[in-house]
Amino acid sequence: MAPEQPHSEVLALAMALISRASITPDDAGCQQMMAEYLAPLGFDIESMVFADTTNMWARKGQQGPLFCFAGHTDVVPTGDPSQWDTPPFEPTIIDGMLHGRGAADMKGSLAAALVATKRFVQKHPTHQGNLAFLITSDEEGPFINGTVKVIETLEARGEKIDWCIVGEPSSTTRLGDVVKNGRRGSLTGQLTVKGVQGHVAYPHLAHNPIHAAAPALAELASTVWDHGNAFFPPTSFQIANIHAGTGAPNVVPGELCVQFNFRFCTESHADTLKVRVMEVLDRHDLEYDLSWVLNGEPFLTDHGLLLDATCSAIKEITGQETDPQTSGGTSDGRFIAPTGAQVVELGPCNATIHKINECVRVADLEQLALCYERIMEKLLC
Amino acid sequence: MAPEQPHSEVLALAMALISRASITPDDAGCQQMMAEYLAPLGFDIESMVFADTTNMWARKGQQGPLFCFAGHTDVVPTGDPSQWDTPPFEPTIIDGMLHGRGAADMKGSLAAALVATKRFVQKHPTHQGNLAFLITSDEEGPFINGTVKVIETLEARGEKIDWCIVGEPSSTTRLGDVVKNGRRGSLTGQLTVKGVQGHVAYPHLAHNPIHAAAPALAELASTVWDHGNAFFPPTSFQIANIHAGTGAPNVVPGELCVQFNFRFCTESHADTLKVRVMEVLDRHDLEYDLSWVLNGEPFLTDHGLLLDATCSAIKEITGQETDPQTSGGTSDGRFIAPTGAQVVELGPCNATIHKINECVRVADLEQLALCYERIMEKLLC
Repeated sequence: MAPEQPHSEVLALAMALISRASITPDDAGCQQMMAEYLAPLGFDIESMVFADTTNMWARKGQQGPLFCFAGHTDVVPTGDPSQWDTPPFEPTIIDGMLHGRGAADMKGSLAAALVATKRFVQKHPTHQGNLAFLITSDEEGPFINGTVKVIETLEARGEKIDWCIVGEPSSTTRLGDVVKNGRRGSLTGQLTVKGVQGHVAYPHLAHNPIHAAAPALAELASTVWDHGNAFFPPTSFQIANIHAGTGAPNVVPGELCVQFNFRFCTESHADTLKVRVMEVLDRHDLEYDLSWVLNGEPFLTDHGLLLDATCSAIKEITGQETDPQTSGGTSDGRFIAPTGAQVVELGPCNATIHKINECVRVADLEQLALCYERIMEKLLC
Repeated sequence: MAPEQPHSEVLALAMALISRASITPDDAGCQQMMAEYLAPLGFDIESMVFADTTNMWARKGQQGPLFCFAGHTDVVPTGDPSQWDTPPFEPTIIDGMLHGRGAADMKGSLAAALVATKRFVQKHPTHQGNLAFLITSDEEGPFINGTVKVIETLEARGEKIDWCIVGEPSSTTRLGDVVKNGRRGSLTGQLTVKGVQGHVAYPHLAHNPIHAAAPALAELASTVWDHGNAFFPPTSFQIANIHAGTGAPNVVPGELCVQFNFRFCTESHADTLKVRVMEVLDRHDLEYDLSWVLNGEPFLTDHGLLLDATCSAIKEITGQETDPQTSGGTSDGRFIAPTGAQVVELGPCNATIHKINECVRVADLEQLALCYERIMEKLLC
């Protein structure tokens, strides 16, 4: 029997992070592990705990421009673990793919950034500027006590990020084929449609809110909100949750609860979307309550030092041409960009994120570490 | 102090039955009491126990048509007894109303039928045909081991009911104002619409089953299934339960679960309704699983010997015109009618059934006994 191949440092770190079941907002010790890795490299570690959320601000250097790696240690729930081919919190390598919840979103990126930073600092002990890590355990959750509060703290004491790489899984089929240089806005609506509860045998005495709402929901699902623009895909509407009913088959429910989310581009505004939704609901004569959470406005980082360094680093390391896009989910970049920072997201392929059997190509994590290192060199050497 | 007025036999029997706390499927000795009353009148008593359910088949006579009184000794739970004005299993008379769980549904009817039968047999010892009681302790429950199994037993040995009065509380404001001469069928469908789970930010990688299903549900909710007929309102479709979503606002759910129920009249058939639902789902290109429970076929007892005898008996005893209806919930009549029996439901007012402070007008029980007796005379003399 051949001896087992020892894991690379990137892979070992990724596996150690995945084995911590850090479902939002539980950090499960991930940041402590990262802090122990960064402190010997000269980073000052600052843990910022806000309510249920653990954040880490790690900084090396006090002069010149600040390059920051931003990311999150939390992961989304696994759903029914028995549906997974492998236990979601037992990192497993199958045919060159590392499986486990968070492998792609985004513990693989965290591991690559740690190793890239160590190599960079060891190769370039007199590098210019500053390095930092802004890490939260609240990216997948309500994002109240995470990056938002860390940025507030930094702003209050005058600390400014110049360049920020966010480790979100930006790639589609090959590592680096896509980076995100902006993000759509995100707007969530919580809709309660009112009806009148009753016995299914006496429908004239009840008013079924599911029946009342179905045509309105069908219309909202098929509405074209805008056509996007050069940087953004069209605005997208998705119903994420819908619930009504007592469980009994003979009771007409009294209300229907629907939660939906817009990912919107710079062609639409949050206030306009709200008005358009209510116009549909009103036209269908619904009685309803509706509350909104504006999760983030859209942002954009155009060509400049960070985006150009990122694309050329990817080309040098992987040979891959890069397509800067603004599609996909929100990221904590939306809270960092408004401070004036350039923000680019670069991470592994996202095909399996938030799904069962989430996985990432091990070779991509090694290449990702090289890309991160090369970006730092381009900006700080 | 005036001596207390002695209770009539109907009232005394109703009170004795109510004082037995026979919550489904517990008969609590009610049928034994009924058997001891019927045996001296010439009835052969057959106790049929199936699993947790006690049933009684009592029959007098072997030649000619069979008149049967069908009913149940079980009652629905009381809820919190402290919410009642009087203890639910201590029958109490207040202002001419007999209070207690089962007073209206349907121990009052059982008492009236027993007394009516005794009077009829004593007045008409040489009456034609046969008399029977089909009593179960499972009417308010899952109806698996009650009337269904008794009917199976009778069918297997060739015993046929010709005319059946079910003692369900059919009246609305005055005794006999409404009888039920049929009931709608009930068909429940459990639908799972399949999608592909994913992140709301990447809608092209997911397939939202709520969006896919909404137009189909809107169409089903607005479909006219039939127009009813002289005896039945149109078939009604109601979605009772709908659920999809992980709870998170950023996840497109992988499936949508919908439970719906048809109350259908004799203008539609269960198999046709199934086909029509699937036709809508297929036309909307849904991928789905769909399972069905047929809770009962519709039945109708048109004008004829039993319905006419019932209406004219009510008119003679109470002066009340009777409206034959098929609305409302199911009853065990649905299991008896398919054997070819004519089935009519006649009982006291149903305003308080299944509620706290269930009660029945004492005078109505006396009149009800007279109605039952008069019906027997019309059919068997």
